[in-house]
Amino acid sequence: MTMNKTAVLGAGSWGTVLAAVLADNGNEVTLWARRKDAADEINTEHINSRYLPGRVLPDHLYATTDLKEAVADKDLILVVVPSQSVRDVAREAAPYIGRNTVVVHASKGFELSSLKRISEVLREELPDYLKDRVAVLSGPSHAEEVIRHSPTTVVVASEAPAVAQAAQALLINSYFRVYTHPDVIGVEIGGSLKNIIALGAGLSDGLGFGDNAKAALITRGLAEIARLGMAMGAKPITFAGLSGVGDLVVTCTSRHSRNWRAGHLLSQGNSLDEVLDQMGMVVEGVKTTQAAYRLARQHGVEMPITRELNDVLFLGKEPQRAVEDLMGRGKTDEMEEMIQLDR
Amino acid sequence: MTMNKTAVLGAGSWGTVLAAVLADNGNEVTLWARRKDAADEINTEHINSRYLPGRVLPDHLYATTDLKEAVADKDLILVVVPSQSVRDVAREAAPYIGRNTVVVHASKGFELSSLKRISEVLREELPDYLKDRVAVLSGPSHAEEVIRHSPTTVVVASEAPAVAQAAQALLINSYFRVYTHPDVIGVEIGGSLKNIIALGAGLSDGLGFGDNAKAALITRGLAEIARLGMAMGAKPITFAGLSGVGDLVVTCTSRHSRNWRAGHLLSQGNSLDEVLDQMGMVVEGVKTTQAAYRLARQHGVEMPITRELNDVLFLGKEPQRAVEDLMGRGKTDEMEEMIQLDR
Repeated sequence: MTMNKTAVLGAGSWGTVLAAVLADNGNEVTLWARRKDAADEINTEHINSRYLPGRVLPDHLYATTDLKEAVADKDLILVVVPSQSVRDVAREAAPYIGRNTVVVHASKGFELSSLKRISEVLREELPDYLKDRVAVLSGPSHAEEVIRHSPTTVVVASEAPAVAQAAQALLINSYFRVYTHPDVIGVEIGGSLKNIIALGAGLSDGLGFGDNAKAALITRGLAEIARLGMAMGAKPITFAGLSGVGDLVVTCTSRHSRNWRAGHLLSQGNSLDEVLDQMGMVVEGVKTTQAAYRLARQHGVEMPITRELNDVLFLGKEPQRAVEDLMGRGKTDEMEEMIQLDR
Repeated sequence: MTMNKTAVLGAGSWGTVLAAVLADNGNEVTLWARRKDAADEINTEHINSRYLPGRVLPDHLYATTDLKEAVADKDLILVVVPSQSVRDVAREAAPYIGRNTVVVHASKGFELSSLKRISEVLREELPDYLKDRVAVLSGPSHAEEVIRHSPTTVVVASEAPAVAQAAQALLINSYFRVYTHPDVIGVEIGGSLKNIIALGAGLSDGLGFGDNAKAALITRGLAEIARLGMAMGAKPITFAGLSGVGDLVVTCTSRHSRNWRAGHLLSQGNSLDEVLDQMGMVVEGVKTTQAAYRLARQHGVEMPITRELNDVLFLGKEPQRAVEDLMGRGKTDEMEEMIQLDR
């Protein structure tokens, strides 16, 4: 078997772990890091001390800060940079990506300035011959668990089955089960919007509301994610799958979740700026809340949790009042809320 | 406002807490307990030391062991006895229940000998004039949280909207939000089958699999619950609601969950008998696994998690192998598994 040539763009926790999976599978892997010290550390010490403290990376995982070197002549490129950086990175890399490359992104969010999904951004920036070779990877997959080979399931979605299958073939192994999926829009929307609900779950937990309340939040969160998703062209069934309810549950209930943690910090009386300072990492849910709030208005979709989060994050609403307002709403028949899902 | 007369049959943790909710709402409440010492303790000390240690109950909550006294002349009766006891209790109580009573059950399971749902059992045993006055209460609602007034949402389902609304009116308050629902079958099936998945989640957690694996289990669990439910006449949308995904999530992720705890004990090498001994309470998921396994065969529905749990509980399969078999299955496109949900 010839070795496949792969690259991962972005050396945060998820990018680094996906690079380690590709390396474990016997692929040649180049990991593009923005910071030289991060690349050097990976090459010489085989660790990523900032994002994965205490974890040793495969020693044939090669890191570089040279984007051209990273993307040239690859079978598979994974784009794992923050949502708001995808356009710039894709634009810079585009001229060097070959015709036979599959480009899979694992970024969770929308481009805030355009409200576009990440695969739309990629399609705009990549050369014409790559437009049908784009896919998205998503699912319940905390990086900290994948790096210690805890069994994990994800989906890779593309409108072209062969593209999803090509990515699947290089990524799948005994602890990382990759399923193909046809619904790019649904997978992207589920993966992005769950971070809003996770912020809300962190708020709820931090304020001392219990598991019953959080389960209600997750249930209603799933409904409003699906409502916006369907308005944007997603298939409803996608939200019942790994990239929908699966990812939502793990992000709202796991101690590893970055967005949950940000919500928890907010509940303790910290301002948004203080929270983002303390986190020291990108918290995608914050910008996703803004984007989803605007998209909901654009599409005429009711998204009560997103609206309350938007009010807390950007309009200074008391978290306690926001959660109470969500719990005490007027409707008294569950189907009145769900009905839009039933079509 | 005249005081409504209500009864709760069954003084386990959930029955006792529902009685406390009804009492908090200003209703007259009679709680039927099987054991005299439990009734006496509730009447004299206002506690239920076995099921709700450390919790003080409303002092106008009256307990009795006399079933006739409990059910006679009531506006609302809640049936909260174990699934396998419902028929006997209903048969004994039937002659004493008045024409204007609404009967709501909150039992989770099937009658194992007949594979009937609990509302079917009730309909068979209650007088003709009550057959259209039966409803089911379900949702993400750990008793331990409701008793301390942590915000909780549940549904009351009946084919007759007026019946669900009558129960709702007596049960709803600021911390206990009750939604009406039209799909009795879906609500009963979601509430029952989630206990199987919770057993599996306890196994998975106890064996050291992580949150990613548990999220996959919950996702697939929801799919197989919905598959059986639809085959039995439920509406698919119900499984996306509080009594479906909501209850499933809280039961699989909360430390309060009895069925999760039983699965966890099993994972530590205890036999089923040892686990049930140690629990000292009814673990509905065990008999529900048997019932669902049979129902799946009857209806020709694939239920891999139920099958693996059945093998672990009753055929001595190693829990480790069962979880691995679930994670490593052959299909590689998510939609192949979901497709039955999409109809």
